[in-house]
Amino acid sequence: MSVRELGELELIRRIREAGGGAPAAGVPVGIGDDAAVLSVTPGSSLLATTDLVIEDVHFRRAWATPADIGWKAMAVNLSDIAAMGGIPRWALIGLAVPGDTPAADVERFYGGLREAASPHGVTVVGGDTSQSPRGWFINVTLLGEHPGRPQLRSTARAGDAVAVTGALGRSAAGLTLLEMGADEARRHGLPDALVDEVASAHLRPRARVAEGRWLGAAPAVHAMLDCSDGLATDLGHICRESAVGARVALDLVPIASGAEAAARALGHDPVQWATSGGEDYELLLTCDPAEVERLSTAFRKSTGTPLTVIGEIEAGKSGIVWLGADGNPVALPAGFEHFRG
Amino acid sequence: MSVRELGELELIRRIREAGGGAPAAGVPVGIGDDAAVLSVTPGSSLLATTDLVIEDVHFRRAWATPADIGWKAMAVNLSDIAAMGGIPRWALIGLAVPGDTPAADVERFYGGLREAASPHGVTVVGGDTSQSPRGWFINVTLLGEHPGRPQLRSTARAGDAVAVTGALGRSAAGLTLLEMGADEARRHGLPDALVDEVASAHLRPRARVAEGRWLGAAPAVHAMLDCSDGLATDLGHICRESAVGARVALDLVPIASGAEAAARALGHDPVQWATSGGEDYELLLTCDPAEVERLSTAFRKSTGTPLTVIGEIEAGKSGIVWLGADGNPVALPAGFEHFRG
Repeated sequence: MSVRELGELELIRRIREAGGGAPAAGVPVGIGDDAAVLSVTPGSSLLATTDLVIEDVHFRRAWATPADIGWKAMAVNLSDIAAMGGIPRWALIGLAVPGDTPAADVERFYGGLREAASPHGVTVVGGDTSQSPRGWFINVTLLGEHPGRPQLRSTARAGDAVAVTGALGRSAAGLTLLEMGADEARRHGLPDALVDEVASAHLRPRARVAEGRWLGAAPAVHAMLDCSDGLATDLGHICRESAVGARVALDLVPIASGAEAAARALGHDPVQWATSGGEDYELLLTCDPAEVERLSTAFRKSTGTPLTVIGEIEAGKSGIVWLGADGNPVALPAGFEHFRG
Repeated sequence: MSVRELGELELIRRIREAGGGAPAAGVPVGIGDDAAVLSVTPGSSLLATTDLVIEDVHFRRAWATPADIGWKAMAVNLSDIAAMGGIPRWALIGLAVPGDTPAADVERFYGGLREAASPHGVTVVGGDTSQSPRGWFINVTLLGEHPGRPQLRSTARAGDAVAVTGALGRSAAGLTLLEMGADEARRHGLPDALVDEVASAHLRPRARVAEGRWLGAAPAVHAMLDCSDGLATDLGHICRESAVGARVALDLVPIASGAEAAARALGHDPVQWATSGGEDYELLLTCDPAEVERLSTAFRKSTGTPLTVIGEIEAGKSGIVWLGADGNPVALPAGFEHFRG
C-alpha cells in the first residue's frame, strides 16, 4: 500500500507504534502533539544540529535501501553531536516521499534510523511527513546534551598537534564502487567482501559517539569536529574558525586498508580519497602536543580506536600546507568530484 | 549570482552575518560549529517541533516570494509552540534549492524567516543547506521553552466548552484566489484590497504566540492545539487523543469577513473554508464550561483577540457531530481538495 493510500495519520500512527510507545527518558510528551516536551538534565547545555539528506544529491535509490537512508540520516547527526563531545538524546524527523512510495519503505526508513539511534539511547520525539512532488527529502534534527564544556572548531591553538581517529578513505572508496556497480567492480578484480566493506562504510557510517565523549572530556583536546566534508575541507574549517594555519604530513594520514585495496585495483590514489573524499565521520582534533602521546595511548585503551597525529597547527591564517614524504610542500592529489557536485 | 557559483561556505557566511552575529540570549554557540550550544532556562521544559515546507506541495513559486516562503516556514512552527502555551526560542533551518537559484533569493528567504521570528525573540542557531535536484525544500525545527505545564491535545474532558481564537476561512480563501490568479479574481469582481487581505492571510499567517501563552497559563483551559489542518481535522485530533467526542454548532463557527466576501463573489460556501480549509493558525481549545465566559472576556481584554465558543466535548469516542441552525446534525459542506492533495 502506498503512503498516499495509507494517509498521513495512519502513517504517523505506525511510526509512533514502531517506536514502542513506552515513555522514554526525558520525554514527558513525544510524537503526537503540536510539539514534543523534553526535560533537559539540570546543569547540562543543550546541543542542536540538523542535516539534510536528499535523493540524487546525497544518495541514489539504486544503491541505498530505505533502511540505509534512515541509518545514515541519523548517523550524520550523531556524528555532529559526537564532535561536540556531547550525549545524543532526541530526534525530530522531516520526511517527504512521493505519494506512490510503498508505506513499507517508509517503515523500513524509520527502522534503519532507529537501528542507528537506539544503541545511543536516542528517541524519536517528533517530526513531519509530507508528500514530495519528486524524490525523497529527509531532514533530521538531533538534540543532545553536554554536562560540561562542548568542544568547538574555533579554539585550536598555535603549536597544537592535529590528530584524527580511525582511518580515512573508505567512504569515498565505497561511493566510487556503488556508483560503478557490483558487476563493474568485479571486472576490476575486487572481491565481494571488499566491495561490501567499503560500500557499507559509505551507506552505514558509524558515528564516533563514545570516542567523542572521551575526547570531549579530555582537557588536552583544544578543538574538534567530525570529518564529514573531507580532511582538507574540515581542517580548513578549524583553521578558518580558529584563525590559524596547519601543516599536515600526507604520509601520516591514516588510510583505511579497504580504501588502499580498492585504490590498487582501480588505479586510484587512496590519498586523494582520504584527504578529499569525506563522509568517513572520524573525529579530527587539535590538542596539546606535550600530551598527545599519553592521550592517544589512553584513548586507544579506553575505546579501542586509534588516534593518529598527522600534523600541527601554526600561528597565522596561512591555510593548510601539505607535506610530502621528503618534508617539502606538495599539492593535494587532483580534485575528486563525486555526484553531490 | 547563483548559489552554485557562490558556494555553500560563502552562503552560510552571508546567512550568519545577516543574523547580526551578536550573541543572542541562551546561545553560547550559534551558527558555525557542528552543533549549536544552547542554555535552557533552569526549571523550564524544552519544546521541540519541526515542519516541512515543500514547493508545489505547500506553496507555488508562481505566487509565493522567497520572503513569503521564509515567513510561513517560521510562522507554522511558531504556531506549534504557541499551541503548547510555550515561548519560542531557537530555530534550525534546513534549506535545499536548485543550484541555479539566485543567492539573493536565498537571502530573501532568510529575511522573511527572520521577519517572522524576530518579534518573538527567536534566534536562528543552525541549519543545513544543500542543492536540490528539483524545487525548494524547507524544514524548520523550532525549539521553545515552557516554565510550567504545556497544553496538550490529549487532556480534553467531557463537558468542556470548545472554543477558537480569531476567525477562520481566510487562508483557504486566499489559497483559492492565489491559485486563480489576480486577473481571474478581478473578473469575479473581487476588489484588490480583499484579494490582498486573504492572500496575505495565506502567505504570511500570524502565529498566536501571545494568545497561546495567555491561554496556556489559564487553569480553565484543558486542551489546546493550533488550527493548521482545518477545524474538522484538528478537533478530530483532540477527540482521538483525548478519547472523547464533540458537538459543534456550525453557525457559531467564526468566519473571517474577508472569507465571507470572497465566498459571496465566487459562489463558494464560506463554512466549508472555515471548517476544512486549514492554515488559519488560530488556536482551538477546550475549557471548563463554567469559566468560559470569564476566560473569553479576560482574554479579549488582554490580547485584543476574540475567543468564540463553538461547541462542547462529549464523553465517548463518538467523533464530531456538526449541528445546523435548527440544532439537528448536518454533514459538513462537500470536501475541499486543495493542491496539497
